[in-house]
Order: sequence, then C-alpha cells, then structure tokens
Amino acid sequence: MEQIKIGMLGLGTVGSGVVQIIQEHQEKISQITGRHLEVKRVAVRNVAAHKDEFKDIELTTDVNAVLNDPEIPIIVEVMGSIQPAMDYIVQALENGKNVVTANKDLIAQHGSELVKIAKKNNVDLVYEASVAGGIPILRTIVNSFAADQIEDVKGIVNGTTNYIMTQMVTKGMTYQAALKSAQELGFAESDPTNDVEGIDAAYKMIILTQFAYGTNVKLSDLTVEGISKIDAADIKQARTMGYTMKLVGESAEINGQLAVSVAPALVPLEHPLATIQNENNAVLVKGAAVGTTMFVGPGAGKMPTANSVLSDIIAVTKNIILGTTGNTFNGYRQKAELATPDMVVAPYYLALKIPDIPGQLLKLTHILTEADTSVKQVVQTETDGEYARVVVITHKTSLAKLQEIQKEIKADGAISLISCYKVLEASK
Amino acid sequence: MEQIKIGMLGLGTVGSGVVQIIQEHQEKISQITGRHLEVKRVAVRNVAAHKDEFKDIELTTDVNAVLNDPEIPIIVEVMGSIQPAMDYIVQALENGKNVVTANKDLIAQHGSELVKIAKKNNVDLVYEASVAGGIPILRTIVNSFAADQIEDVKGIVNGTTNYIMTQMVTKGMTYQAALKSAQELGFAESDPTNDVEGIDAAYKMIILTQFAYGTNVKLSDLTVEGISKIDAADIKQARTMGYTMKLVGESAEINGQLAVSVAPALVPLEHPLATIQNENNAVLVKGAAVGTTMFVGPGAGKMPTANSVLSDIIAVTKNIILGTTGNTFNGYRQKAELATPDMVVAPYYLALKIPDIPGQLLKLTHILTEADTSVKQVVQTETDGEYARVVVITHKTSLAKLQEIQKEIKADGAISLISCYKVLEASK
Repeated sequence: MEQIKIGMLGLGTVGSGVVQIIQEHQEKISQITGRHLEVKRVAVRNVAAHKDEFKDIELTTDVNAVLNDPEIPIIVEVMGSIQPAMDYIVQALENGKNVVTANKDLIAQHGSELVKIAKKNNVDLVYEASVAGGIPILRTIVNSFAADQIEDVKGIVNGTTNYIMTQMVTKGMTYQAALKSAQELGFAESDPTNDVEGIDAAYKMIILTQFAYGTNVKLSDLTVEGISKIDAADIKQARTMGYTMKLVGESAEINGQLAVSVAPALVPLEHPLATIQNENNAVLVKGAAVGTTMFVGPGAGKMPTANSVLSDIIAVTKNIILGTTGNTFNGYRQKAELATPDMVVAPYYLALKIPDIPGQLLKLTHILTEADTSVKQVVQTETDGEYARVVVITHKTSLAKLQEIQKEIKADGAISLISCYKVLEASK
Repeated sequence: MEQIKIGMLGLGTVGSGVVQIIQEHQEKISQITGRHLEVKRVAVRNVAAHKDEFKDIELTTDVNAVLNDPEIPIIVEVMGSIQPAMDYIVQALENGKNVVTANKDLIAQHGSELVKIAKKNNVDLVYEASVAGGIPILRTIVNSFAADQIEDVKGIVNGTTNYIMTQMVTKGMTYQAALKSAQELGFAESDPTNDVEGIDAAYKMIILTQFAYGTNVKLSDLTVEGISKIDAADIKQARTMGYTMKLVGESAEINGQLAVSVAPALVPLEHPLATIQNENNAVLVKGAAVGTTMFVGPGAGKMPTANSVLSDIIAVTKNIILGTTGNTFNGYRQKAELATPDMVVAPYYLALKIPDIPGQLLKLTHILTEADTSVKQVVQTETDGEYARVVVITHKTSLAKLQEIQKEIKADGAISLISCYKVLEASK
C-alpha cells in the first residue's frame, strides 16, 4: 500500500495523541483512505525527553528537516502560540506542504493571511481541532449548513471555564476555590488568564463567525468578559429564579449585521446549554431552514483533540489522492458590518446595592422606565439595615439602553450596580 | 456563472422545501459552489396540483423526461417507498446521473446494491436526509470519526414516537390518547405502524450501523420493539425511580461483534437523551479516542430534511466541479458477526404481577439468583388484595440470562411478567 508520510511540529499532549491514533487505528484508516499513514519525522525541543517513548519516529530539533523534507506532503503543527508557529506554517505552505493545525490563537488572528498563502500554493490548510476539541463543528458548518443561512451560533466553547463554573454552581464554591481545584486537576493552567478572561473563547468565536457568516472579525470587534469577577451570590440568586450560569460565546446575525460576544450569562435550567457540565463543550447553531441543532462533546483533552487533527489529516489525504488540494477549508465569504448597540437586544439580570431608605426602588424603576426597559422579575434579597440587595431581570432591551441605565445608575451615586449579565431565552 | 441543473422525482413536503431553499439561499449557494443551481424539471403524479405554486419549473408526469435529460447531472429522489423509487434510481445511476435521496426504507434495504451501481457508473449516491432529518450525522461519522473506532451509537431517531412518548411522560397521557394527539397535529400518519412499531427507527439504525462499523445488517438481524404496548403505569413508576422512558435505537460493538436494537428503554433523568423532547432527534456516538459526542436537532419536518438534501446536492456539485464523483458516501467496509445474547449486557426493569401470598417474592428472587442476576432496586407498588405489582431493576445481566428469567417466570405460572425494558446507564 502506498504511504503518506506526515511531519509534525511539537509532540506534547495533542501531538502524542495523534501518533497514538495513527498507530492504533491504522487498519481502519488504511481501509478508508487506501494509504498507509506514517508519522515520519517530528521536530521537538528536546529529543532526549521523547526518544524512549517514540522509538519508530525520527525526532529532531531541526524544524527545517521537517519543513523541507520532500517525502512529507502533510505537516501537523501542534506547538501552539503565535510565533514561531506562524513562520513555520508559512514556510510549510510556501514549500507546497498541506498543513493541519490545532492553533486557535494563530487561526483567529492570522487565519485569513494564512488561507491566502495556502490558496496561492494550491495546498490545504485545515484546523478542525482549533475549536471545541472533539466536536467536529467547523466541518459540519462547511458541509451541512452550506445551503442554509445561519442566524445564530452560541455555545460553551471553553472547557476550563465550564469546569470552574460547574464547580461554582453545583458545589457552591467561590471562583478562587474552583479555579484552584481546576488547576490541581490540570484543567486550568498556572496562568489561567486566557481562559478565565474569555480570550480563548473569543478566539473560537472569531473562527466560528468566519465559518458561520463568512466574515472576518477581530478580537477588538467582540465584547469579551470573563468569569473571574463572578460572585457566588449571583449564582445562588440566579438558581432560585430558574437559571444556571455559564460562560457563553455568541455570534448573532441581526438584520445582516453581526454581534459577537463572550460573557457569563444566565441560562434557563431547561435550556440545552444548561446541561453541559464540567469540561464539555456545546455549540448551538440556528439556521433559517434547519432550525436549532446542537453539537456536544469533550471540549479539550488529548484524544478528542487528536481525533479532530486526524479527521483533518484524512481529509487532506483524500484531497492529495484526488488531486484536489488547495480548496479553502471554508469557502464562504461575505462582508458584514458589526451590529450597533441599539440593535443587540436581550433580557438582562442586574444586581444592585440600594440604600435602605424610602424612594430608592422608585428611583431605580424610574431609571429603567426612562430607558424604555420593563421589568420581568424583581427580588429584594437581603438587607443589612443600611443597604438592600435588589435583583432585577428585565424584559428584552437593547445594549444601548442597558448602557444608558448603567450610566444613570453611576450618575445617581447612591444606587450601585454590583453585576450585570445577559439572560438567555429558553430555546425550543 | 455556469449552471448545474437538477431533476427531481416528487414534489411533496421535502421536495417543495428543496425548491424553496435553492431559490431563497441562491446567493450563498452560488458563492460557495461557484455555480448557479437550478431545479429544471420535476416528475410529479399530478401536474395541475403543483403548477400554480411552481411556475418557473417544468413539471411532468413523465419520469423518463427527468431521468434521461442530458442537461441534468443530479437527480433528487423524494418520492419515498421502495418501488418505483428503486427502479428510477437504478435507471438514473445507469444513465450516469448523481443521485441524492432521502429514502431510508430503500437505503436500509437495498443500499449496498445501489452503492455498487453508483460506483460502477462513477457517480455519487448520497442520502444524508435519510437519517435523523436535520442532524448531519452520516457525513459527520464519515468525516469526523474516520480515524476513530466507534464503540457505540445510540439515539432517538424517530420523531413521531418521541413526540408520543413526550406527551405520555410529561402529560401522563395514555399511548392511545398521545397517538391521537400526534395524528391530529400531523406528527403521526393515519397508519402509524412503521413509526410506532419501531420499523422506521430500525431502518435508521441499519444505516447508522453501516456508517459506524462499515457492516451491513438487515432488519431480521435487529431486535425491534415499538411503543404501542407501553403502559402509562410503567412510565409513572420509572419516574419515581429517577428515569424517563424513550424509544432508543442502539448499535453497539462488543468484542468486535455487533448488537443492534430498537426498543423502549428507561433513561436516567441526568442522561443527555432524557432532555430530548417532542419531535427532536439525538444521536450519541462513542468513539475510542473522542469519547462521547452528541448531535441534536429536528428529526423530521420540511425544511430540516430539505436542508440535509441540499447539503448532499452541494457535496455532489463540488464533486462534479472537481471531477471526483463516484467515491462511495461511506467507504468503510468491515465484516462483523452479530453478538450472541450472552454478550449483550444491560440492567433491566421488570414489572411483575405476583399473587399476594407468602413466598412469592422469595420465588422471584430465587429465579433471578438462579440466572445469576442481582437486584439493584425493588419496589412493591400496589396490591388489590389478590395480586401485588412488583417492579425490579436489576444490575447488569446478559440478554441470555434475561431470556432464562422470562422462561422461568412463564414456567412458574403464578407470577407473570407485565413488562420488561432495558435501562440505560448514566453516561458521562
């Protein structure tokens, strides 16, 4: 059987999973592709650290030995970070190599540039593993929503924060305690900033937006809020009102314009996203024709992510055999403006600290009414004699009006806004 | 822009949805494929019935005018039933036409035959819409589990029965009342046999088994049980023990052998399938590498099913452009035996009618013990003075042992088995 030789950059968690799947599932892969896949050469930082575990593979510290090997048509980049990964991928593409990568930071920030270089060199550049680990969401959007108009993509796309939030919700832990537990279990890094501040989820939403709408957005186009400031009191309060809390990424099309955000949100307990626990991810896609579909699976981890890399490797292998490399992973291109704050509407949850003297609640309702925002639920939850804690869930209002409300509350001085979260509507 | 002309057989619910999506989403489709798709000619039984609604399309009662049109490279079959659809598809394939069909009965029973004819004629035969309506499960298995070893596929794959079961569970309706409501709402046909007896779900499990394991099974290889004999009392009883009830299709690989079944099952309330309501479908796929992933969406309906047909049309269009038609939809082939009853293990729920005299429960536990089956929960729920109703949930036991138990109970004569259902285990 003819061979397809693979070169790899990096041999960490995902990389070693890729080697493992290729070896363990060789028979099925050969049966499907008609080729024997073999990891020929891997560039690593420290050969000695890996050489006992990977006896059959050439390990090298010389990246060029991988990038310039004429026997290798597929390069798998699993190093992570922007540089030097970007330079290596550019060199690989320019050398006529097809590239498979799991590097979301790179694709989110430099994807369109790399896509052009791949196209110019008539090679594939694919990155299923960059979003939602084991969930094959990118290829599904490309293939199965090709004829549909996507109207909304929302989901839980960061496993670390979902693990932390699950601990906070189910065990009543504080953010700090839940983060510590996640770090001890290896679900969070020692510097968790990218995960807990929503940056990682934002990169995934940038890629999902490109696939769903064909439009490139950049990090500064998104509103991004992480989970580090969430107060356990709000989680408890939300629960009594029929909601759980999740870090939700959303990319919505509103009259042809896009609103992309990552923020903690109140999720109704009967909403499909409410059931997604721990390190799992889920993506809900709403199409004009198909309605709402949901894709759930492990959002990270060695083998799920490696499996997504393998699905890319097999897709590229088929294209090499058919002579059809060079077609862009997502060929859909559409220019769209960003939606303005007056177009983006949702119900909101507001927690406020209000002086426990007459007239304050009236003042608050006055502020809301002035901003054309009506109240769905209001609960006064505690008072220490001096201040009362009031929680309001509004009916749908625009982001512009919400900002007006926030400004008025600030101007008032006496009332203060403790927290403010979007509320998802129960989905069918 | 170059055109791709489409011929259709049938213009019912799904067919008119296909026309609608092609017209309404033309711009996106053209942008992605680089072609203008046009439904040129449709064979219908009654031209007059459709001609006002579809002014721009040639309608004909002459099927050959569609099958033999040299301008048409893609034929969409949405007539349903085995014949004459099968003859028409064979003729289309032999004429060198690519065929898209939503016909699960046909694919489940004659798929392998049709696949060979397509291959011989170097054309595509695709049928994403034949399983789970709007959920793109077949293409996902082909693309995203290509390198993984699937170990289990289970799901709710019939919308009609899930609607009926949802009514029975949430409103305490009897089967007959829920069926009548489903018929009034158009969710069940006037002759509901195929749906309620599990045949439709079985066809879908046959197709899913082919995709998951590369193995062809036939209807007689499956154990199939419908929902028409479900007693509302068992649903109520299951609820008190932490379960809901669903019609579950499962295709499991056990030591390289396959067990494929459709039957009502007790589903733990925290299991992902427990949340799938009304006409929705869900498929859980467990892979050795990826773990458990779930795909949820509308299981039927005009636009969701039409969207799956469109994803097939676009895949075929791309293959026509690239000159790569003729590759089998699912290229995975593997021979596997059927698992024997001693290999298939699960916990079971047994509801029994037991004479209300001393020694009967002892006798029952004796029968279970003889069959090496231990009890997890036992509840005596009612007694009319003469008989008691006893419900047992066993620990895992094999189908062979269950059959032994059923035989012994029958031989006893005094105790009688009212119902017996598989119990799903809580999945991670």
